[in-house]
Amino acid sequence: MGSFLRSRASVVTVPIAPSLNPPPVTGEVLKARIYASIRPELDRIEKAIRRHLASSVPLIEVVGRYIMESGGKRLRPLLMVLSSKLCGYDGDKDAELSVVFEFLHAATLLHDDVVDNAEIRRTKPAANILWGNPAVVLVGDFLYSKAILMTVLHNNIRMLEVLSETTTRMAEGEVLQLIHSDDLETDEPSYMEVILRKTAVLMSAACRIGAILAQAPPDQENALSDYGLHLGIAFQLIDDALDYVGTVDELGKPVGNDLQEGKATLPLIYAMERADAPRRDLIRKVFTAERQSMQDIETVQRLVRELGGVDYTVQRAAEHVASAKNRLDAFPPSPTKSLLEDIADYVLCRRS
Amino acid sequence: MGSFLRSRASVVTVPIAPSLNPPPVTGEVLKARIYASIRPELDRIEKAIRRHLASSVPLIEVVGRYIMESGGKRLRPLLMVLSSKLCGYDGDKDAELSVVFEFLHAATLLHDDVVDNAEIRRTKPAANILWGNPAVVLVGDFLYSKAILMTVLHNNIRMLEVLSETTTRMAEGEVLQLIHSDDLETDEPSYMEVILRKTAVLMSAACRIGAILAQAPPDQENALSDYGLHLGIAFQLIDDALDYVGTVDELGKPVGNDLQEGKATLPLIYAMERADAPRRDLIRKVFTAERQSMQDIETVQRLVRELGGVDYTVQRAAEHVASAKNRLDAFPPSPTKSLLEDIADYVLCRRS
Repeated sequence: MGSFLRSRASVVTVPIAPSLNPPPVTGEVLKARIYASIRPELDRIEKAIRRHLASSVPLIEVVGRYIMESGGKRLRPLLMVLSSKLCGYDGDKDAELSVVFEFLHAATLLHDDVVDNAEIRRTKPAANILWGNPAVVLVGDFLYSKAILMTVLHNNIRMLEVLSETTTRMAEGEVLQLIHSDDLETDEPSYMEVILRKTAVLMSAACRIGAILAQAPPDQENALSDYGLHLGIAFQLIDDALDYVGTVDELGKPVGNDLQEGKATLPLIYAMERADAPRRDLIRKVFTAERQSMQDIETVQRLVRELGGVDYTVQRAAEHVASAKNRLDAFPPSPTKSLLEDIADYVLCRRS
Repeated sequence: MGSFLRSRASVVTVPIAPSLNPPPVTGEVLKARIYASIRPELDRIEKAIRRHLASSVPLIEVVGRYIMESGGKRLRPLLMVLSSKLCGYDGDKDAELSVVFEFLHAATLLHDDVVDNAEIRRTKPAANILWGNPAVVLVGDFLYSKAILMTVLHNNIRMLEVLSETTTRMAEGEVLQLIHSDDLETDEPSYMEVILRKTAVLMSAACRIGAILAQAPPDQENALSDYGLHLGIAFQLIDDALDYVGTVDELGKPVGNDLQEGKATLPLIYAMERADAPRRDLIRKVFTAERQSMQDIETVQRLVRELGGVDYTVQRAAEHVASAKNRLDAFPPSPTKSLLEDIADYVLCRRS
């Protein structure tokens, strides 16, 4: 099982140029093509991140660099920059503003590591292991404050409204996750509410604020906000599916992580709803155990795949990718539009 | 020793009415008089706090109420409301806006409890003991986000600039404290930098934003900002002095707390600078010990008092109270001005 996810990369087809009959492209080709197109934007974003990480307190810079240079894809800043470009923005304030979204993302990663008592993030020791919970909580607070301050300097109250509503919903979502995640009886709507707040609203805000920077009309702003929301949902669904099929090398984190941490995500929720009583009992036993053997983890992972939990999750992600791309209909064809479509497709076939 | 602090309450004299020759008032009388005058403001602030604590996530409300109903004095919201009143504000948005400062304060208390691994706050179990670090970190994040969101709704970019600069400086200050506090060789300037950022900048921002709400001229805004800054410094100095002289009953937290947590504050820094080698060694031994007996703590407390650490700290606080009151010269006499002067005096003679 998990074959749906594995084969996805080879069946996704994306038009390279609208006028050509497109050949099928694999995930790796898609990734290479996306990164080739966004190189100039990425360079500007990286420079801006480094500039804004400067602090009079060296430890902040050290921890900040560590979390932000640990293999992140800069997806959120990119979404903001590309969204503003799609709406015709040609000023030079986009890269500066986009840093806000990487800082907010980094702040949530740092606090998540403390909340989850994480040991590893992307093949490296988690920040809390290296610097301890106190430093990690406080550097997270700094990055959050700095993100708000950087937005304030753009002197646009609408942006601040979107951003602070977003971070408030995110914080509520994190608390919700804390309450629901270890509950094996949680259902799909509760899970969707959590990933919406945890992942999707920030990507949505990045896209919307890109549109606001470009002074785009409301319909374009809303279209991009929806694009980001669906993209974010799909992104998190795939993340949660990968935890049941990926390998350590691919993911840069232990596989079966959610299971080990007692987090009930959609693959597991779906499988539990369809399992017969003995299998449900087995899953519950492993899920609630104080310590799980690697064999237990692998047994449940296989069960979840056999019961269709991974396929179902990927299918839901595919629907959200389709919705994301649909919302781009509000824009005429352009290289930037194609790039945003490529990014949506890539979310489905990414392996890490 | 510590007699200076103990006798302060009976020597502070405050004019009850500018035209009368004032009788001396004690700390308790001063406190009663302040609270009698601010009852209507306090009631409006309490109602606004309760209204804004509402969240779709019940745990947020529970933890939020716990930290905010544990005997806080609402000093920061009061400073904002009184500052706006002093500048002639007579609208009805002051109480709403003042909640921002209680939320930010509560967020820092929650994160501090995690950072310090606190067990007790104001005679009650610390929030992290009751709900665990994850919930406490995340509810802190929520309160912080909500504070920014509430400010955004006032639609004033200047307020947001002041606020986000303040929270960024505060976060840097917390990291600074983490680095320096367990360093017994830290000096007075480093300590002052920490308490400035940790306590004073938020009180200063509360006063400045009160002035901004009242659309006060720049000189009044700056005067109030300075008042809040000096008041905040004095407040923290007295807090740190009390830890070397108070009793558990008075403070609602273990006495000798800073010493036990390995935090070098001004009384200790001053004493270390003046101690002879054997006493310095004794202090260092207790300060750096893994576990300290109550007797060790009391010995060092007595040493610090004998070496003048408490008197010196209170003296510095008195200077800042004087500076705070001086800056109110920018305003003509009024009941609100007298109240702000009373509050400054009370900071010096407070016991909890």
